Amino acid sequence: MTILITGAGGFVGRALVRALLADGANVVAIDTQAGGIPDGARVVAGDLGDRAVRDAALAEGCDALIHLATVPGGAAEADPAASRRINIDAMYDLLLEAGAAGHCPRVVYASSIAVFGDPLPDHVDDLTPLAPKMIYGGHKAMMEHAVAMFSHRGLIDGVTLRLPGILARPKGPSGMKSAFMSDLFHALRAGEAFTCPVSPGATIWAESVTACAANFRRALTIDSVLLPVGRAVTLPAQRVAMGALAAEIARRCGASPDLVRYVPDAALEAAFGAQPPLATPAAERAGFAHDGDLANLVANALAALEG
Amino acid sequence: MTILITGAGGFVGRALVRALLADGANVVAIDTQAGGIPDGARVVAGDLGDRAVRDAALAEGCDALIHLATVPGGAAEADPAASRRINIDAMYDLLLEAGAAGHCPRVVYASSIAVFGDPLPDHVDDLTPLAPKMIYGGHKAMMEHAVAMFSHRGLIDGVTLRLPGILARPKGPSGMKSAFMSDLFHALRAGEAFTCPVSPGATIWAESVTACAANFRRALTIDSVLLPVGRAVTLPAQRVAMGALAAEIARRCGASPDLVRYVPDAALEAAFGAQPPLATPAAERAGFAHDGDLANLVANALAALEG
Repeated sequence: MTILITGAGGFVGRALVRALLADGANVVAIDTQAGGIPDGARVVAGDLGDRAVRDAALAEGCDALIHLATVPGGAAEADPAASRRINIDAMYDLLLEAGAAGHCPRVVYASSIAVFGDPLPDHVDDLTPLAPKMIYGGHKAMMEHAVAMFSHRGLIDGVTLRLPGILARPKGPSGMKSAFMSDLFHALRAGEAFTCPVSPGATIWAESVTACAANFRRALTIDSVLLPVGRAVTLPAQRVAMGALAAEIARRCGASPDLVRYVPDAALEAAFGAQPPLATPAAERAGFAHDGDLANLVANALAALEG
Repeated sequence: MTILITGAGGFVGRALVRALLADGANVVAIDTQAGGIPDGARVVAGDLGDRAVRDAALAEGCDALIHLATVPGGAAEADPAASRRINIDAMYDLLLEAGAAGHCPRVVYASSIAVFGDPLPDHVDDLTPLAPKMIYGGHKAMMEHAVAMFSHRGLIDGVTLRLPGILARPKGPSGMKSAFMSDLFHALRAGEAFTCPVSPGATIWAESVTACAANFRRALTIDSVLLPVGRAVTLPAQRVAMGALAAEIARRCGASPDLVRYVPDAALEAAFGAQPPLATPAAERAGFAHDGDLANLVANALAALEG
């Protein structure tokens, strides 16, 4: 079983590479740099927009492809042409080539709740129309349709997962505007003060990287008849208030919640701090799940940072 | 008022060029060849994938753009790379450049009912998810999101119209698999026998080119608050059985309905002869309309062929 993972050096990618190697898969790990990719995978380092890089990755065929690589939200907004080149053009080529290299390989595509727009509507569920405003969300929405079309044609067997906020990303620049959600974990773990750029009542949709990786592994084997006709599901997520999240992290780390000061930035509050009630029955019917409750979410996120 | 029309030499394009010239607009008519474009427009002939052609078209600015040009369904299926080049890449460039050349110009984009998939679901309405299978419908669905995203960003002010079967196209190869709908008109007008590749009970969604052109003109001036958040509406269409359509054409042309012999082709019957009940409340609320009844549809379609 040869499984390709793009973005394998990212924090979701690394968790998946480890899990799939443990399952005994032949893992081909693709990223712009080899650094950060767990040992045991065949590493292909380079630009996904480069045909030679994709050819090297597909040289052993393709039983499945997990496509995580992306120019993320903030970076896409700053450089729309780079987002177009990677998030549309390179991905479109990769789908064609993966289909040709395999026999209708399972393709699991990481899309985003950004497809629902900015600001989000008052309530999001499986009938909410896609209405992206950010370059990132717009390109993700476009490529959801490419995945669906190529699946309906029998070239690939696609599954699109729309990711909520994944906790907690490692420290350092990620290009994600939502990085503050993870930075809160790093500060409280270290007992350091943290200035939160959204209010304590700000609500976010979140799942731990552990739950996220489990959902991707589930997507590798799920029967596509369980999916909606467009092959896309919004992953289940908990809707959590930042103040409650901070209190639970502080409690578990033995830190004071007073370390957190709230200085809301209007743009971030609107984009990432006003996530409305979310219903994901299609994903739940298909067996996808979040962490269960806030205590588990925080425990899983902290455990992944330790690991 | 400078209005650009791509695909201006096509049969919807020609009707629109004439109507907009009559309104007094400065019409820039773009097509691969100058032939067929009504007099009075500034003609730009060339490949829309060529930057120089787009630059020439946009040289006088852009108050509005009607984007009809496309690699149509049958041709896209036969040459997916050509569809990608024109229906995605060139259009994406055109949207960026039209936005830069104007001040949030109105862009009216001709999409298609092909976005709903093949076969269609049992019923289509404004909540039906897009699930394209054909290359054409897949690319149209992708670009609906590009129109919506660029509209939400304020670069353009987009309106997407999903076209049903438009009656009646002129004789000759169109690259459209649905050409038989129009060929029925040509045969009965000429008193010639016609072999219909779908059954008499086959149902199609149709509007006349006259009604279609009126809907595009309406789209030029409509307030976008009347549109759904994704900026796309499925145009109202009558659901007509081919046998009833043939009988009405024959009646009006004084021909015998017995000239029509039905030899259904399974693939065409499935793709174009099983169009289910259709509800288009969003378009109707926004003021778009079909021909009213079958007699008007046929009368309008025949009158357009005379003109």
